[in-house]
This record gives sequence, C-alpha cells and structure tokens, in this order.
Amino acid sequence: MSSQTRSPSGYSTWRLIAEGLRRDILDGAAPSGSRLPSENELAARFGVHRNTVRQAVSALTAEGLVDSRRGSGTFVAAHGTLVHRIGTRTRLSDSLREGSVASGQLLECAVEPAPPAGIAARLRLDGRPALRLELVRSVNGVPVSRATQWYAADSVPGLPKQFAALGTITGALHALGITDYVRASTSVGGRHATPEESEDLGLPVGSVVLEVRALDALPDGTPLQFGVTRFAASRVELDVEHPASG
Amino acid sequence: MSSQTRSPSGYSTWRLIAEGLRRDILDGAAPSGSRLPSENELAARFGVHRNTVRQAVSALTAEGLVDSRRGSGTFVAAHGTLVHRIGTRTRLSDSLREGSVASGQLLECAVEPAPPAGIAARLRLDGRPALRLELVRSVNGVPVSRATQWYAADSVPGLPKQFAALGTITGALHALGITDYVRASTSVGGRHATPEESEDLGLPVGSVVLEVRALDALPDGTPLQFGVTRFAASRVELDVEHPASG
Repeated sequence: MSSQTRSPSGYSTWRLIAEGLRRDILDGAAPSGSRLPSENELAARFGVHRNTVRQAVSALTAEGLVDSRRGSGTFVAAHGTLVHRIGTRTRLSDSLREGSVASGQLLECAVEPAPPAGIAARLRLDGRPALRLELVRSVNGVPVSRATQWYAADSVPGLPKQFAALGTITGALHALGITDYVRASTSVGGRHATPEESEDLGLPVGSVVLEVRALDALPDGTPLQFGVTRFAASRVELDVEHPASG
Repeated sequence: MSSQTRSPSGYSTWRLIAEGLRRDILDGAAPSGSRLPSENELAARFGVHRNTVRQAVSALTAEGLVDSRRGSGTFVAAHGTLVHRIGTRTRLSDSLREGSVASGQLLECAVEPAPPAGIAARLRLDGRPALRLELVRSVNGVPVSRATQWYAADSVPGLPKQFAALGTITGALHALGITDYVRASTSVGGRHATPEESEDLGLPVGSVVLEVRALDALPDGTPLQFGVTRFAASRVELDVEHPASG
C-alpha cells in the first residue's frame, strides 16, 4: 500500500486540533462548564498559529460543544453524549437522561409506488407501495439523528398525521394500534456525513456519522419498518444490549 | 448554530469524490472486478479537474479498494466489507467468509502496575497489575482493526507467548484453559482516525473508524478482558445479534 495520500497536509491542522479538543470534551476530561485554555495557550500547546486554534474552536462552537462568552473565555457547554441503546425493544425515548426532551421533525413524507428493491424485499411489500419518512430527531434542541424510514403504506394509514400530532414515531404507531414491535436486525457502519446530512444535523462538513440500518418487526414476525438512521457521532454513542448482562 | 465552519472549502473536493466512489464500491453498485469510469469521465461527472479525480482514485488505491492496471484502467478490487458480528459470543473468526484468512499482529505488550482507573474498575483489578496488548488484525492481508486490550495480568499468564505461537487471541486463551467467555457490554462510537491509527490501519488521513469498547467475562461473571477496538469503517460493518432474530 502506498502512503502517498496520508500526508498530514491532506487533512487540515485545525480539524485535528478540533478532534483532540472534542475527545477531551466527550471523554469528560474537559467537563461541562469548564473553561477552555485561551487561544494563546492552545496555540502554544499545539505549536500552531492562533488563527488555526480559532478555526478549531469555531467548529466546536458550531457543533454546540463550547460557548464563547465575550471577555471571559470559551466554556465547555452542557452537552452529554446521548447513549442510544440497541436491543430487542429499542426506543429513542428509552435512551434519554432524566430532564432531557426529545423531539422529532418530519422533513418529508412520500408514498413510493416502486421503492428500492432491497427495501421492498425487507418489508415483503410484494408490489404494495411504501411510505417513506424523512426525519430529524433532536435531544434538548440539538439534532442527534437523521433517519429515513420505510413502511408498507397500507400497514400504517395516517402515520404522518399522527406523527405531526404526537411528535414521536412510537406515539404515532401506538395511536394506530401498534403497541409492540421488536428489533429483527441491526447493522452499524461509519462514514463521513454528506453535505446534506451535515446541514440537517448542524454538523461541520467532514463530520462523522454512525449509519444504523435496522429492521423492526411485529411480534408475529411481520416486517414493520426498515430504517437507515445517521447519528451524529460527536453526539451519540450506541450501547448494545446483551441478554446475559441483564 | 452558526454555519460559518461548514463551508465546503474546509473539506477537500477530492475527499468527497473518494467518499462517493467508496460508497458505490462498498454498496456493491460498483462490484469487484468492474472498471471505474476513466479520469476524464469522472472529471466530467463531478465537474472538477482531472487532477482532483486522480487524487480521489489514488486514495482508494491506497486503501486497497481499487487497482490501476497500466493501459487498461482502474478496477474495483476484490474486497468485501467484513461484517463483524456483535453478540453474546463474538469472535472475529466467526465473521469471516469462507476462504478468508485472519491474522493478528502484536505491536506491543506491557504489564502495567497502575492501569487507568476506568480499566482497573472494569476488570476488578483491586491493585493487581494489568496486561495490555496492542494488536492489529488483518483479513486477507488488509488491516481491519487496531485494538488495545487489557487483562488482569495474573489471570492470563503467558498470553503474549501463546499469541505469538498461535496468532489469535481466541486460540491463545484456549491454550491457557479459557475456552468460553461471553460479551458483557459493548458500546460503539465513530470518529476520525488519529494519525497513528491511520498509519497502523493503512488508511488515508481523515478516515473514519468505528470505536468499539467491550467487556468480556467468564461464564461465572468474572471480568476477563476489556478492549477498545478501532475498526476501519471503510472495511468493516458491525452486525448486532438479536436473540429473537435467531
């Protein structure tokens, strides 16, 4: 393998600095409310120009990880990585800390007469149209995920309307009489966010998303929903449920 | 939130093009053995200079996803994303396709009298020293993960020696009489690889890794191993085992 493309010049110094500071914040080494070192101190620590540090801090500000207060410095914002459970019965609402508020925004819904073949097979549509929802979910006002969900359109009549009224998919399904469903399969990948995903999630260009592809089914095994959810990796960690661990 | 840092200029165009081609390859839209469009065709498609396309293709070559053959073009290499299962009993060897060969390389092993507090607590060391292993795992010669593993040093005497002889952790533990262990906890995050991780995994700078933090325990609940494994996201997908799904 050639190393010709691995030159650090291909990746901006400010991004590497932002990454380091982000880890400190998310690992708890720089806890909420603590003051970041000054631009001069950071510039000295990393051996770079103050403008480079400023660009890194500015990226963290855009992500909501730090707040600058004029005259008094830059402080680590109250953030808390959302720990999202992946298990047999996974609901976003189960992952919230006390006092956290989840909200969902429906960007688009559409009935697709001919969804992609992979989707049709997973949902066993057999020629029936699919309902596709495009969603952004936020916790405490900060976007955490961008999801695309498919359903057999005839299995969830009025889902978008119920979602508009109730604000959560779990609530909307409940209103339609679907009170229980279980996770049948989950795969997890990682990649750079597309420009559109970055925009929807309020992330800097080049940020990392965790892409979770999951199939939920009714207790009798009938496929209910296939979803592709892109979680902002700087804000969400996935926690896998193991039966033996209780 | 400000959008000032989201300018596409912060993220190289060639990286976005490489990302798009990478997705096509890993999604199977550009299958193994197929010929990539020529540099001129790609330049026209993305509306960029040929040099930009060349940089993107060069990155994919460095990752081993494509091969250039002089005079006849660039072809998608036989790659196959490794699907790594996460379940109660997870072994890397279980994730391999038929005909694939896994190998492990021990970069470093050290006994740590005072490991980090979080590690000591998870392994219930109570003052005992930890054994730390630094490993790179490859499938068919391509690095897929970079792991740091900790054990209670007195629980696995001779583990590095057994690993050197047998080449796998599962095999080395077996030789020490540890024939069964179960996954107690798994968390998954995503981030940019550090320069060191990129080097160890043969990835371009700025690549994405999936960071899996996992605790394995003996059937009686005694902690056996805590590991932090960074998977090259361009080469590995995680598949979560759900009991109900068989």
